[in-house]
Amino acid sequence: VDKVKRCPGLLRRTLWKVGKDDPRKVVHSLKVGLALTLVSLLYLMEPLYKGIGKNAVVAVMTVVVVMEFTVGGTLCKGLNRGFGTLLAGSLAFFIEYLADVPGQVFRAVFIGAAVFLLGAAATYVRFIPYIKKNYDYGVMIFLLTFNLITVSSYRVDNVLSMAKDRISTICIGSGLCLVMSLLVFPNWSGEDLHKSTISKLEGLANSIEVSVMEYFYDSEKQANEDDSSEDLIYKCYEAVLDSKSKDETLALQANWEPRYSRSCHRIPWQQYAKIGAALRHFSYTVVALHGCLQSEIQTPRSIRDLYKDSCIKLAQQVSKVLRVMANSIKKKHQFSLEKLSNNLNEALQDLDNALKSQPQLLLGSMKGQSRTPITPKTPKTPNFYMFDEETRISLSSIKSDCCSPVGSKSKEGQGHKKVLRPQLSKSKTMSMITSLEFSEALPFAAFTSLLVEMVAKLDHVMDKVEELGRMSHFREFIDDDENI
Amino acid sequence: VDKVKRCPGLLRRTLWKVGKDDPRKVVHSLKVGLALTLVSLLYLMEPLYKGIGKNAVVAVMTVVVVMEFTVGGTLCKGLNRGFGTLLAGSLAFFIEYLADVPGQVFRAVFIGAAVFLLGAAATYVRFIPYIKKNYDYGVMIFLLTFNLITVSSYRVDNVLSMAKDRISTICIGSGLCLVMSLLVFPNWSGEDLHKSTISKLEGLANSIEVSVMEYFYDSEKQANEDDSSEDLIYKCYEAVLDSKSKDETLALQANWEPRYSRSCHRIPWQQYAKIGAALRHFSYTVVALHGCLQSEIQTPRSIRDLYKDSCIKLAQQVSKVLRVMANSIKKKHQFSLEKLSNNLNEALQDLDNALKSQPQLLLGSMKGQSRTPITPKTPKTPNFYMFDEETRISLSSIKSDCCSPVGSKSKEGQGHKKVLRPQLSKSKTMSMITSLEFSEALPFAAFTSLLVEMVAKLDHVMDKVEELGRMSHFREFIDDDENI
Repeated sequence: VDKVKRCPGLLRRTLWKVGKDDPRKVVHSLKVGLALTLVSLLYLMEPLYKGIGKNAVVAVMTVVVVMEFTVGGTLCKGLNRGFGTLLAGSLAFFIEYLADVPGQVFRAVFIGAAVFLLGAAATYVRFIPYIKKNYDYGVMIFLLTFNLITVSSYRVDNVLSMAKDRISTICIGSGLCLVMSLLVFPNWSGEDLHKSTISKLEGLANSIEVSVMEYFYDSEKQANEDDSSEDLIYKCYEAVLDSKSKDETLALQANWEPRYSRSCHRIPWQQYAKIGAALRHFSYTVVALHGCLQSEIQTPRSIRDLYKDSCIKLAQQVSKVLRVMANSIKKKHQFSLEKLSNNLNEALQDLDNALKSQPQLLLGSMKGQSRTPITPKTPKTPNFYMFDEETRISLSSIKSDCCSPVGSKSKEGQGHKKVLRPQLSKSKTMSMITSLEFSEALPFAAFTSLLVEMVAKLDHVMDKVEELGRMSHFREFIDDDENI
Repeated sequence: VDKVKRCPGLLRRTLWKVGKDDPRKVVHSLKVGLALTLVSLLYLMEPLYKGIGKNAVVAVMTVVVVMEFTVGGTLCKGLNRGFGTLLAGSLAFFIEYLADVPGQVFRAVFIGAAVFLLGAAATYVRFIPYIKKNYDYGVMIFLLTFNLITVSSYRVDNVLSMAKDRISTICIGSGLCLVMSLLVFPNWSGEDLHKSTISKLEGLANSIEVSVMEYFYDSEKQANEDDSSEDLIYKCYEAVLDSKSKDETLALQANWEPRYSRSCHRIPWQQYAKIGAALRHFSYTVVALHGCLQSEIQTPRSIRDLYKDSCIKLAQQVSKVLRVMANSIKKKHQFSLEKLSNNLNEALQDLDNALKSQPQLLLGSMKGQSRTPITPKTPKTPNFYMFDEETRISLSSIKSDCCSPVGSKSKEGQGHKKVLRPQLSKSKTMSMITSLEFSEALPFAAFTSLLVEMVAKLDHVMDKVEELGRMSHFREFIDDDENI
């Protein structure tokens, strides 16, 4: 009962939200209402009705079926409907011509066979991926019209005029839809695709930046308040991950739209879909990177701090590249691939250097920098090592090798080892720290490795965006755009 | 010209491939042909035509539009069409009742206004995500029928009988479609979903196993011949990544299907979609793991070999869990979550131990195991360290600390250092190896970390599959199923 009570409220809120999120939807609804009213006038107004007759209802039907949210969608459906009808009409007349023999039974059998064959063939053709993607609706309308005309021809004599009426009303309906779509507040699929590509690029840039910042700064307050930034990161890449079918539909519809770039070049919408695919592959790495933030084992802050600058620099470079690409698409100018690559490589080199100078990591803790949680153990629990010595006997005996002056073999026995005790203990402490750091450094290493991986994937995205720039003849790169 | 020549061949091959990949598509095409022929008989056969009349063509139309590949799709469209028509019919009569006033002009305006309002409202309602997902077609048919009846009512007097004819023929058409779908070689969406979930689980299991094996065994022959296994890995996870829209459509259609599990419980198809979502998140990690295989920097074989067993064991456990789940869904029995978790945890613990005993890594190379590419450097190029000493002066002086018997400060000067030279050189070698190994171990660390991450995500998948088992009342777990 309670649920029923809340239902109107929920409905109202849902309706409001749909309109608020995208006011174009409200406009589109009004457009459809207007188009339907206009097409109804064909039937309602006496002079128009006289010209067209009862078939005016077919025009009404066409408007309901063909009118889509975007110009591309409407054009695709309208043209599919038009051509499907035309083709079916021609074929139906051909069949009728063949079936024009005496004998009702023979004609019925012939028509039945034609219906069966064409029905099966058209349905089968609809399974071909290329047809399904581009002409599914057209084939369906073809089948529909073919059946209507062929079957009707059995009893109606003036099929030709019936078909002509049907085609003309379909043309009127489709034409009205196109006019409404194209001229009254048009919604372009291409524009949607363009904007969504830009926002995806920007979203990923934010997502990466926030992830990395959080990794290096906010890891304490994980549980409580960073839900909002978590949400932000999650939403940004989730939007990219789930974009496949939406992107492909938009690209297909955009292909139908009569829009040209400067200097009359077709805009390569399929390239946008390709950028989308590259971005999706890029974002898998972002997901994995985000996974590092949520990992149970966290690398101690002190260790992270050592590489903080180079990691943040690299992440910022990656974000910057994404933003530059977003901007390049937005303002339709090319970007300097070389310069960006150089910056990226520099940041990579930095990180590489920081990693190469890793011994500092060890020594940093040895020197007793107060931030490391590991260091205190060394002075406090010397007996820990004593105890441990029993179990790790083989290890320590080999270890002694490294620190003894001469390359004496490890199997020289216990006596030798006893002499080296102080050194041993020290070196063992070190090895334990190494061990501790290695296992604790694991998530950090993964984090870094994923950052590097990300750069590799980014390269692919950059290629695709540059290709887009070339294909759609973006303006040449201007240097002062760079500082955005 | 050449392209045109090849076209028929291409078409033939495409047609052949569609049928070969899924013979059900051929059967479905024949079914549609048969259904169309049967419904045409309504028009072609004299006694049937007398009963139904000219509206028989509406039945033909219904068959073309409603007949879908799966039972769920047909039911969804058929019922949507039926209810949409009924609702629109009722509303149209209500409107006609209201508009039943003298004055043609007033009636026309009233009808126009109704068409506008209902058109805008219905279009707007179609934007609500819930409606769009479940009843989009129904709302469209509602709008279509409402407009047809309302507009026709302006000139036709016996609208009631017209509407009744229309509804009855739609029922005949929809009924025929349902019979054909349900009784003649039915294709169930639910079954497709069930099978695709199983094959996704198995595909991921294979993908992980092959990835890990390749990482530890085949890394030499990267360039030449492992394209096939690359392809295998790629295809398996790509199928999972791209499954979102397909899964959701199948789950929606399956919800319309009248199928029940043993003991008359509804099968929770939405839970399959949830498993799909969890699997998709799981597979992002697989993608990242696969990325490790393709990384430029590769960890030396010798280091990988140290952890080979535990990594492979963990990966095999993960694959095994995936296979057990696939099997559990296939044979509809529950699986022992506890046992699998234990095995997983054991494998995790193993890997953890292997990582904790990392000093062996260092010592392994010191002992001169011939496989390590690093070891030879130590005896061969002593002057390398001499040279390096100049640049790394501060490092080495601090380093000397660790190995000197007393905790002498590093700033004690060059003299001190000179005395410790042999030790120094040794310890520096070690630190350099550590450094080398740390940066080279980076991709390996990422690999390991991703394996661990994978287990965390797998947990989520296991939860969902277990939930499915509970919701669809799978048989209890039987222990001897385990050894599959």
